[in-house]
Amino acid sequence: MAEKAFQDYYPDQLAHCYGCGHLNEHGHKIRSFWDGDETVCVFTPEPYHTAIPGYVYGGLLASLIDCHCTGTASAAMYRKQGRELGSDPPLRFVTASLNVDYLRPTPIGVPLEVRARATEVTDRKVVMEAWLSAEGEVCVRGKVVTVVMPKHLVKD
Amino acid sequence: MAEKAFQDYYPDQLAHCYGCGHLNEHGHKIRSFWDGDETVCVFTPEPYHTAIPGYVYGGLLASLIDCHCTGTASAAMYRKQGRELGSDPPLRFVTASLNVDYLRPTPIGVPLEVRARATEVTDRKVVMEAWLSAEGEVCVRGKVVTVVMPKHLVKD
Repeated sequence: MAEKAFQDYYPDQLAHCYGCGHLNEHGHKIRSFWDGDETVCVFTPEPYHTAIPGYVYGGLLASLIDCHCTGTASAAMYRKQGRELGSDPPLRFVTASLNVDYLRPTPIGVPLEVRARATEVTDRKVVMEAWLSAEGEVCVRGKVVTVVMPKHLVKD
Repeated sequence: MAEKAFQDYYPDQLAHCYGCGHLNEHGHKIRSFWDGDETVCVFTPEPYHTAIPGYVYGGLLASLIDCHCTGTASAAMYRKQGRELGSDPPLRFVTASLNVDYLRPTPIGVPLEVRARATEVTDRKVVMEAWLSAEGEVCVRGKVVTVVMPKHLVKD
């Protein structure tokens, strides 16, 4: 795996996301990497990220898939364009739709592995399938559609 | 609106959810109520729940829809069975699938209103459509399928 995560390349003004911004001191600061044609992110929830005792809160699981996929979208687009991660102009994505299926309860207290694979990369859109595992068992599956971040959203 | 929220009726062992448990001191503690045939929940994100500056983090929006819908599912099932909210045995639901479409960026710093309506209530399942608005404009739409919480998940 690369030493620098996808999120480490986000320009500062786009690095405040609660899920994945390395500048959000309250947030999850997830870190995503290439692993062949897939991307991977490992995250261990806090003990209070509970749904019912013993299991992880579904909103966090959806959030991990969402943020890992916006990072994956950026990395996939850089790769498609044959560009170095983080090279200018920056490529950042927002989520258009997020679909998650909770297959089984996700145990709390262990690292969770989120993986994603881009299934469609066009000039404006990246579609991904994602899956989240605990102790080697897939607990959640997701499908995420992201689009290039509209320029007017970025405040200088 | 009722004075007690749906979540106030959750039995203590099921009231630790990070999104909606009134006993989770780190969590969002959302509160949901009937409003005619719809349900409503108002939540104001913290300043650090940001996606890009000025807008709310999508993972939180998905979480609000998710937890408001598991509460709505419970209330809808009690209503269908002609039972008082919170009467024994408790009716609690888990999410099977969560689909959210982000229609426009959600501004931060204002109260968000989440509404839901049950579109299908069977013995084991409640399906809902949900929508989240800021300043009167719908920013996110969701569809949530919940199922009755399996008994083995509840630790006495």
